[in-house]
Amino acid sequence: MTDMARRVVAEFFGTFWLTFGGCGAAVLAAAYPELGIGFLGVAFAFGLTVLSMAYAVGHISGGHFNPAVTLGLWAAGRCAPKHVAPYIVAQVAGAVIGAGALYLIASGKAGWVPGGFASNGYGAQSPGGYALGACLVTELLATFFFLFIILGATSKGAATGFAGIPIGLGLTLIHLITIPVTNTSVNPARSTGPALFAGGEHIAQLWLFWLAPIAGAIIAGVLARWLYADGGIVDTTVVEERGVA
Amino acid sequence: MTDMARRVVAEFFGTFWLTFGGCGAAVLAAAYPELGIGFLGVAFAFGLTVLSMAYAVGHISGGHFNPAVTLGLWAAGRCAPKHVAPYIVAQVAGAVIGAGALYLIASGKAGWVPGGFASNGYGAQSPGGYALGACLVTELLATFFFLFIILGATSKGAATGFAGIPIGLGLTLIHLITIPVTNTSVNPARSTGPALFAGGEHIAQLWLFWLAPIAGAIIAGVLARWLYADGGIVDTTVVEERGVA
Amino acid sequence: MTDMARRVVAEFFGTFWLTFGGCGAAVLAAAYPELGIGFLGVAFAFGLTVLSMAYAVGHISGGHFNPAVTLGLWAAGRCAPKHVAPYIVAQVAGAVIGAGALYLIASGKAGWVPGGFASNGYGAQSPGGYALGACLVTELLATFFFLFIILGATSKGAATGFAGIPIGLGLTLIHLITIPVTNTSVNPARSTGPALFAGGEHIAQLWLFWLAPIAGAIIAGVLARWLYADGGIVDTTVVEERGVA
Amino acid sequence: MTDMARRVVAEFFGTFWLTFGGCGAAVLAAAYPELGIGFLGVAFAFGLTVLSMAYAVGHISGGHFNPAVTLGLWAAGRCAPKHVAPYIVAQVAGAVIGAGALYLIASGKAGWVPGGFASNGYGAQSPGGYALGACLVTELLATFFFLFIILGATSKGAATGFAGIPIGLGLTLIHLITIPVTNTSVNPARSTGPALFAGGEHIAQLWLFWLAPIAGAIIAGVLARWLYADGGIVDTTVVEERGVA
Repeated sequence: MTDMARRVVAEFFGTFWLTFGGCGAAVLAAAYPELGIGFLGVAFAFGLTVLSMAYAVGHISGGHFNPAVTLGLWAAGRCAPKHVAPYIVAQVAGAVIGAGALYLIASGKAGWVPGGFASNGYGAQSPGGYALGACLVTELLATFFFLFIILGATSKGAATGFAGIPIGLGLTLIHLITIPVTNTSVNPARSTGPALFAGGEHIAQLWLFWLAPIAGAIIAGVLARWLYADGGIVDTTVVEERGVA
Repeated sequence: MTDMARRVVAEFFGTFWLTFGGCGAAVLAAAYPELGIGFLGVAFAFGLTVLSMAYAVGHISGGHFNPAVTLGLWAAGRCAPKHVAPYIVAQVAGAVIGAGALYLIASGKAGWVPGGFASNGYGAQSPGGYALGACLVTELLATFFFLFIILGATSKGAATGFAGIPIGLGLTLIHLITIPVTNTSVNPARSTGPALFAGGEHIAQLWLFWLAPIAGAIIAGVLARWLYADGGIVDTTVVEERGVA
Repeated sequence: MTDMARRVVAEFFGTFWLTFGGCGAAVLAAAYPELGIGFLGVAFAFGLTVLSMAYAVGHISGGHFNPAVTLGLWAAGRCAPKHVAPYIVAQVAGAVIGAGALYLIASGKAGWVPGGFASNGYGAQSPGGYALGACLVTELLATFFFLFIILGATSKGAATGFAGIPIGLGLTLIHLITIPVTNTSVNPARSTGPALFAGGEHIAQLWLFWLAPIAGAIIAGVLARWLYADGGIVDTTVVEERGVA
Repeated sequence: MTDMARRVVAEFFGTFWLTFGGCGAAVLAAAYPELGIGFLGVAFAFGLTVLSMAYAVGHISGGHFNPAVTLGLWAAGRCAPKHVAPYIVAQVAGAVIGAGALYLIASGKAGWVPGGFASNGYGAQSPGGYALGACLVTELLATFFFLFIILGATSKGAATGFAGIPIGLGLTLIHLITIPVTNTSVNPARSTGPALFAGGEHIAQLWLFWLAPIAGAIIAGVLARWLYADGGIVDTTVVEERGVA
């Protein structure tokens, strides 16, 4: 099995798990009567998908599971250009098939209707009814800080082996803040998967959840080149080998 | 004390703790009026049984506590064949006796009736009323990813010493997604313990919670042989010594 | 400052924090209207007192904060006999003064009445009305497993530096299971502090929360001598230096 | 980029994240109907801002994000005097701008009114109506223990690389105890940011949330000089390089 194939398989299963697990907790368990896990449980679910997969395949693919992460690392000079396109294709495929698996399970409950199916949205599709501008700022800022954490925790001088913990729980934190605003994306692949099954307006709003996370990620990547200039990892090969865990 | 005896004792107490602790949180504390821990607390309880025991005895037995984990590791070439049967016997014994201890405590409350006693189930016994097919897919997929995390986090190149964290919290994540569907098994021993005390239909449905988790685990084991082929641990002795923590 | 003085100060502040923090979360925040943290938050609070203090002073005193832990480690041959009495005195003093500080704060709310003040209890004083026998078995078993985790995670061969995580979160897990039964002790010092302020029946029931945890801890200590016989740490000096973190 | 500039930028973004993230979870998500995260979710949010940023920039600035932490470390001889003023300016700037970003997002919801905007307060501004004295003792004690954990977990002999976990989750614990009392500060910068937007009485009460945390932190710093005298890190350069992670 070639190195590229292993990387692509790792990104596929990692993003499948992120979308299936995070959206699955939201769709199946968040609003369960009386005992439901609420937004707090959904926040932990998304974060733990990344924490668990970072340790499982971080040493194979770097553990991105997110086109914005791949592009932010590329902007920081920490992802080989040849990996960008295959990673993003694998991530979107994983997210779509993961959402499909969730749809299959969810529809196994008599009388179930998909509704928003854990899609992201703004305006009328925002859980709390937040306007487009607030949603754009939210996704841009949250993804900026997500990449800031990723780039810092995997930079030279950071504690070795720990990165999967702040990165995973950092994603939990982002959900604790922003679920009411956009239902939390910071990940174009995660947004695309469920939107295809929810359809209609959810697909029409997908542009925001590609644009804002990627913009925030690239800004963080550029800042990291400067902030970690004399202490960061700039040898692409080493970073690619090292991964996030 | 021989090496085999120490391994079997470790697996016995680990699976006792998993069943007593996880099912105990569900039976005693989940639905406590007003202050109850809900599905979120039960999810943390199950995950923390594994996290805590992985660090306590992972260096003795590998920290399986689950026949599906033992068989998945065997399929990946990471568990000596001579350990499979003794491990599974110890796991089932631990789960049954752990469930018995929980029964003893729970019945110390006046007027208590066992009900489902945290058993797993499909159809009419599924917490959310999910059909057999959805429950089978859920258990198979969830156990596949559980083993994927275990096999990856203990593979060569993964951060040393951390594995108990993604594995334990990965089990928490699995519960956050799937409690409403099957009450979450991914572990035939954990299913068997409480079912013996709940009786009736819960025993009749046990076949699914042996079949689906083991199938998912073995598929992950075979994939791991390929995915980690040039980077995985294939020397059984080393893996057995190393454990999950 | 002598070595013994530093150890005693560490145990004093550690047990102050455990009692003030764990009982404080229960008294001040558990039942707060609508936004309260419930049993789940109390469980995390107790566990995080131990996790945080294990890393803060584990390398000074070993991080016991609990007479049952001290006696269990002594039974396992991992605590120097000369440390047992000073540790227990410091722990009880820390717990009583920590409970006093909490009383001072809690009484700063107009109209506050202490009630049970997070005391432990059985029968009519059990949160869920569990009988004496069930409470005794619960405390004995829970403390047995708590020491099992502590002894295993700090034994030779276990991952270095991690022990504070499974031990702290193991205490969270124990609370997730047993708050409804005894309000969770597994720690005679933690039981003694608030009981002195709650008074009456809470003091009369203290015997159970000294007897059962210590019995469970000593059984685990004896088992550990056997289970970790050829791989455990038996040199008292080394263990004392090493601590739990 | 000079060393001082990198430190200041790290403290700015770290404290931005702490204030934006912690107060954001409180303002946007805590009281969301039915699915809201409550005080438990807010407690995790604050703790995870520190955990994530400690690993991201702890190796650059030491990861203070809090004037009380900076002054407590200075009192312990672990922060170079020349860093104190620039750090505090950067922290307050980060907190104010972070609160501003949150205000911008929160106001994107039709009909939103800021209210307390996650400010800290005593008496009539205390969430649970606690008197000034109780609030002062709470903030002093909580910050004392917060610094005790920070100073211990980064002292010589403590497990290397782990400090961000007990420090971050220690802040979660502090919130689990004290949100009902003062809405939890232990950080003058975090208090100042939202107070400027809430205005009125919230600004008039700010003095307490500068005074009490700094007093508690300095007491802990002085104790640490003594407690870790023969085992602590006293070479400022080394500590500054080492950070909390």
